[in-house]
Amino acid sequence: MQLFSFFSSSTAFRVRIALALKGVSYEYRAVNLRAGEQHQQAFLDRNPSGGVPVLVDGDVSLGQSLAILDYLDSRYPEPRLTPADPILRARVLELVNVIACDIHPVNNLRVQLYLKNILGVTEEQKNIWYRHWVEQGFDIVECLLARQDDAPYCFGNQPTLADCCLVPQVWSAARAGCDIAAYPRIDRIYRHCMAQPAFIQAAPEQQADAPQQT
Amino acid sequence: MQLFSFFSSSTAFRVRIALALKGVSYEYRAVNLRAGEQHQQAFLDRNPSGGVPVLVDGDVSLGQSLAILDYLDSRYPEPRLTPADPILRARVLELVNVIACDIHPVNNLRVQLYLKNILGVTEEQKNIWYRHWVEQGFDIVECLLARQDDAPYCFGNQPTLADCCLVPQVWSAARAGCDIAAYPRIDRIYRHCMAQPAFIQAAPEQQADAPQQT
Repeated sequence: MQLFSFFSSSTAFRVRIALALKGVSYEYRAVNLRAGEQHQQAFLDRNPSGGVPVLVDGDVSLGQSLAILDYLDSRYPEPRLTPADPILRARVLELVNVIACDIHPVNNLRVQLYLKNILGVTEEQKNIWYRHWVEQGFDIVECLLARQDDAPYCFGNQPTLADCCLVPQVWSAARAGCDIAAYPRIDRIYRHCMAQPAFIQAAPEQQADAPQQT
Repeated sequence: MQLFSFFSSSTAFRVRIALALKGVSYEYRAVNLRAGEQHQQAFLDRNPSGGVPVLVDGDVSLGQSLAILDYLDSRYPEPRLTPADPILRARVLELVNVIACDIHPVNNLRVQLYLKNILGVTEEQKNIWYRHWVEQGFDIVECLLARQDDAPYCFGNQPTLADCCLVPQVWSAARAGCDIAAYPRIDRIYRHCMAQPAFIQAAPEQQADAPQQT
């Protein structure tokens, strides 16, 4: 199994966490997004979306982190990252999609480049945009977490897809200067996760393509 | 069962298609997004995200269209909208997420309002932005569809979640002036779907809150 990844991509980070939790070994294939390697034809043939992550499993080459996470959960069911209980499963996917649809897409690299290069917004305006969507999204995540009993992970004592998605989003937001302490439940879960071996192993700083100081 | 919906919301349209395909009857609860009804506290208590769709099934109140679609597919398994075969399932979810993560979020109402009200972009710039993400996304969808044999639906002879997501995105894009004929596979599948009773029943124009001419 191969994972095409970039150390600081939060969607690749999601998949690395799932692979680490499941103890699946894989070949790490770095795609330097800053150097534009995702736009090379050989990579586009693999993934027309031109982004990471891409999972290659035998003949299957699969893009889109949420599709990859679902695939891994059926291919390697232990530990299961989507609960079997239908209502809990729905709650997990609700939180996952707040992050994957409402926060991440409006702040990713291609949108930031459009804002800067096509609309000519200033660096300050771009940073305000970024924080706006993170803050609006994290307010919602806090509300959803408040519906659950406090627990080490988003939904109880075991990690789920919600933690696989939340942790990379918090990592990116903190790096962009967002005040994570303003979201006590998110902050607590993030700190707990980032003390666990699988999350540490998956972290951007631990990847082969990470600069020595990030 | 109740569905909080707005006639022209493409994410609510996704869920209406699934409900119609499965023959599930439900109470239609209109939330007028143009009048800001999604920001009222009673609605936010139901869905902290402050958007539609929201599905209410007994004690469960669930936001996020993809979480709702997954829930409906386990609650009402016939007809199944996510294939049982793991690789085909992954392909369906890959296409679903191109639409749900890469196209829709950057063009939805809240982003359009931010562009206009906070960044002060012109109507023309906003339209170019909209078309840019649709065109980039539809190019990718065409590539993914080209990997399959031609068929009435995105993946074969039966509708899947991919059709539930593609059709509303095409409906919105066509309404915004995008040239759908430039994407022959998408165009063909859209026309086929929109001739089927479940898709017709779910269409914006058929909803109780649709103006007589939309």
